[in-house]
Amino acid sequence: MYRTHNCGELRMEHVGQEITLSGWVQGSRDLGYMMYTDLRDRYGITQLIFTEGKTDKNLFEKARTLGREFVVKIQGTVIERQSKNPNIPTGNIEIQVTELDILNASKTPPFTIEDDTDGGEDLRMKYRYLDLRRKPLQESIMFRSKVAVETRSYLSQQGFIEVETPVLIKSTPEGARDFVVPSRMNKGQFYALPQSPQTFKQILMVSGFDKYFQLVKCFRDEDLRADRQPEFTQIDCEMSFVTQEDILNTFEGLTRYLFKACKGIDLPTLPRMTYDEAMEKYGSDKPDIRFGMEFHNLNDLAKGKGFSVFDNAELVVGINAEGQANHYSNKDIKKLTEWMQRPQIGAKGLVYVKWNEDDSIKSSVGKFYSDDDLKEWLHAFGAKKGDMLLILSGEDEKTRKQMNELRLEMGTRMGLRQPDDFKPLWVVDFPLLEWDEESERFHAMHHPFTSPKKEDVDRMLNGDHETMKSLRADAYDLVINGVEIGGGSIRIHNKELQSKNFELLGFTKEEAQAQFGFLLGAFDYGAPPHGGLAFGFDRLCAVMMTGHGAIRDFIAFPKNNQGRDMMIDAPSPIHNEQLDELCLKIHLDEEK
Amino acid sequence: MYRTHNCGELRMEHVGQEITLSGWVQGSRDLGYMMYTDLRDRYGITQLIFTEGKTDKNLFEKARTLGREFVVKIQGTVIERQSKNPNIPTGNIEIQVTELDILNASKTPPFTIEDDTDGGEDLRMKYRYLDLRRKPLQESIMFRSKVAVETRSYLSQQGFIEVETPVLIKSTPEGARDFVVPSRMNKGQFYALPQSPQTFKQILMVSGFDKYFQLVKCFRDEDLRADRQPEFTQIDCEMSFVTQEDILNTFEGLTRYLFKACKGIDLPTLPRMTYDEAMEKYGSDKPDIRFGMEFHNLNDLAKGKGFSVFDNAELVVGINAEGQANHYSNKDIKKLTEWMQRPQIGAKGLVYVKWNEDDSIKSSVGKFYSDDDLKEWLHAFGAKKGDMLLILSGEDEKTRKQMNELRLEMGTRMGLRQPDDFKPLWVVDFPLLEWDEESERFHAMHHPFTSPKKEDVDRMLNGDHETMKSLRADAYDLVINGVEIGGGSIRIHNKELQSKNFELLGFTKEEAQAQFGFLLGAFDYGAPPHGGLAFGFDRLCAVMMTGHGAIRDFIAFPKNNQGRDMMIDAPSPIHNEQLDELCLKIHLDEEK
Repeated sequence: MYRTHNCGELRMEHVGQEITLSGWVQGSRDLGYMMYTDLRDRYGITQLIFTEGKTDKNLFEKARTLGREFVVKIQGTVIERQSKNPNIPTGNIEIQVTELDILNASKTPPFTIEDDTDGGEDLRMKYRYLDLRRKPLQESIMFRSKVAVETRSYLSQQGFIEVETPVLIKSTPEGARDFVVPSRMNKGQFYALPQSPQTFKQILMVSGFDKYFQLVKCFRDEDLRADRQPEFTQIDCEMSFVTQEDILNTFEGLTRYLFKACKGIDLPTLPRMTYDEAMEKYGSDKPDIRFGMEFHNLNDLAKGKGFSVFDNAELVVGINAEGQANHYSNKDIKKLTEWMQRPQIGAKGLVYVKWNEDDSIKSSVGKFYSDDDLKEWLHAFGAKKGDMLLILSGEDEKTRKQMNELRLEMGTRMGLRQPDDFKPLWVVDFPLLEWDEESERFHAMHHPFTSPKKEDVDRMLNGDHETMKSLRADAYDLVINGVEIGGGSIRIHNKELQSKNFELLGFTKEEAQAQFGFLLGAFDYGAPPHGGLAFGFDRLCAVMMTGHGAIRDFIAFPKNNQGRDMMIDAPSPIHNEQLDELCLKIHLDEEK
Repeated sequence: MYRTHNCGELRMEHVGQEITLSGWVQGSRDLGYMMYTDLRDRYGITQLIFTEGKTDKNLFEKARTLGREFVVKIQGTVIERQSKNPNIPTGNIEIQVTELDILNASKTPPFTIEDDTDGGEDLRMKYRYLDLRRKPLQESIMFRSKVAVETRSYLSQQGFIEVETPVLIKSTPEGARDFVVPSRMNKGQFYALPQSPQTFKQILMVSGFDKYFQLVKCFRDEDLRADRQPEFTQIDCEMSFVTQEDILNTFEGLTRYLFKACKGIDLPTLPRMTYDEAMEKYGSDKPDIRFGMEFHNLNDLAKGKGFSVFDNAELVVGINAEGQANHYSNKDIKKLTEWMQRPQIGAKGLVYVKWNEDDSIKSSVGKFYSDDDLKEWLHAFGAKKGDMLLILSGEDEKTRKQMNELRLEMGTRMGLRQPDDFKPLWVVDFPLLEWDEESERFHAMHHPFTSPKKEDVDRMLNGDHETMKSLRADAYDLVINGVEIGGGSIRIHNKELQSKNFELLGFTKEEAQAQFGFLLGAFDYGAPPHGGLAFGFDRLCAVMMTGHGAIRDFIAFPKNNQGRDMMIDAPSPIHNEQLDELCLKIHLDEEK
């Protein structure tokens, strides 16, 4: 037997007991006449003690050979500590060791197994198995497991059935981002890995499963931004005979349940905000509403006073950074302006208006606007003395995006974005279609089966081109602290509407057939009204635990920005025999 | 709102209530003055009634247009049925319909949506979404979901953490059965899809996760036998600081829990049988122990009496088919012999000895053996009057395999293999190594990290070549009703033993490094003693629900024997642009 207890379990009530523990040597402090060794496992740390006179001499010598990360089994007696450690649950006791069995030695790890390690990113990715021993990662992975358990528990309780959809599916003509898998049995043909189980879950509704869910791996072969992964996990759901309201209520229920079960937090009812309102007030469809600092449109007040930059701008918009007037010197403002001018954001400039505590007003556009003008602005914001307006201008959409960045940055600087403060909301009424100037066609904002809102159906079937831009969809996103957790939509189940949608999206009948043939086929045999949603599971876990959306620590074996698993060194070349079996040849020179 | 209740919910207590239901039209019986229509959803079937005089005329006419599988929403009043149907839970009531809304029409399905459908295999695979509407498939898929929920519930309770391991991993030099995935970002290189998460779960033990599980998709690109799938699901587990006994107890606990929770069956303690005993008594390492009919070795009794077939055979072995003597005419015996001689089994002949009710003895080898000889055989089997011995002879291993087939066939014929009778067992003490005559080398019976039994370690490190054949491993299989559900082993965590094992398996150091490099690397940093197992989840569900192991109905979207998904028509050709992006060319003529 390797252990009677784990390393996080022993307390004062165990004092006097003979116990057996196994675990890893976290480290030792050798005081000569005595030595303390910390023994670690997933459950905690227990202090071992070896004492001259009490500990057998040979055993003490053996204990002195223990290096960091050695795996040992010990037997001993639980005793009360002389100097207790209130910071760990086992801090009142220690083990007087009577037997020591070295189960496995360890090389010295290339970085320390501590909460704050000295290992760099690349080194930790390569030795992921050691990085995963660190408490923050252990906790992340265990938290993820807990969220998965609770997600399944809630959805099962609600009558959802977990159905596994296939991983080896069909590549679609627009599947530029599909990973493909050559088939050996069907030579020259390929499977594709799913970007999502979208069509399968709709098929399951056609099959009458009524309520489906799955925690499912999805795959996307795209250029990876800092925090994307080629394989990621979704909480994927679909329901039949439901309206948007049913779906929002169900998954608001899930969200509140998860926060309660995994964090002990009672969330209030989730607010809902239309897409239009989110863009208007926050310049983003995933607003962080932990703080206000909403946008104010200054077009009426700021234009026509002779300041050509504003006069020529489509939009003049500002935020009020409360109480910041005397925190920002000219130099600070300059720095902030430069930050906004970085290519990632691309603002041309930044205008400020300070309402100082002494009632004076200072602004970078003071020579174009009188103090009275500026006071009007300040009043429009409901500003007080000590506040500072920050104003951007330019083309509408671009300026809102820039202002969103500025608002988030100011929120962070002002400490308004606390990781333990959770403010989820639903963003609803997304546009159905997005007009793409470049390709001169509509794209589906959510996906091509998304239903317009009931009140927009007539306009969709009979309206002109401009009307199409204003159609709203039964589509919704869950946003927490500025991070998009996921979203979904009610699907079209009516043939006429679906044809119209394909037409608007520029699909010919043949193209629609090629891409969605089996689903359209299924729709011929009695498709129920249905809808669903998907949450990014990695991101949900990250936001819940850390308050922000960085996912890498919540995936046991992530890939780096080049899509490589540095621990196992994948992808890698394969043997020619394997290529031959698949009837494939590599032509790296890209001659065609 | 689409429904106030589902179609399986209404009872006598609802009589008089106004309700709304949605679902599919199962069918109608039009009696002229009245019409019954069955409305179906996942939860059940409710009878609708339209009556001349009571039902609005237009509504009745509309109801008459309803075809099979139309999707409708109805409102109406729950009334008591005149003639009740005790076979369904809603059989006491019906709905007097007052409003009818056709949500979607349906083409006439290509086969009936009934428990026993008229659709052929291929048609049902193509229209899987319709096949999945049939009750047996709905129940299989729902049962699977239930087993998954309970599996996770049990393992979580036991302190296991579910960790997702990657799907895009590394192809190994021996990975002939790997599916590979070309990488676009790392041109000319490939990921592989995992045949199992074996190395990752061992890594997780090295990382200190202590107890890991996952319900995980695995992939194998092999020629598909009738009941294999290229993608399948495993309950995959690993534990640290455990012995074989700990693992068997944990997963015997899981097995018993699942039978109780999902079937209401209390399983007794699972018997354990050594591999040697299973081969000796049943000629199989996955014996069906729902019935006895154990093998008896007749070498001593049957040889040396001048019957050259037996005299020259390595093994003469028989079973006793109790009470079958007067059920088998000469013609029946001949048919059974021919069945045994089919190429799939390949027996040369079949000897019988009947002990008739009139005490006479009849045998196909009567001219070589006296009645006294034959009575000795019968006594050896503990046979009674009316019993019939069936005897095979030949090369040991081959003959046992043939006898295994015969035993199972006789068990089936004699009604000894009832689907609702469950007899699971552990088969333990598998050989560590398998000698392959052809390649003249050892193969790992389980996998190359499997540990020999403690008492065999010395013999493994110091023994000669012959000794190696007799080494036993800490490896075990769970078998239910003759179906192998899964198995596992204690892993080697000692370097010396691992090197010895690689040496026996014919790996050079370089080969071991190429194939298992990152795991061996991880083992340098303090690997704990660990072990685990994997159950085939598809098969477990199938056995639990049907008593046998046919898995296709337990996978929502299975592939056929050519690895094709006939519903979505995958795999399929991909565009040249996609191939170019991956730097691949197809050469189907296989010129090299």
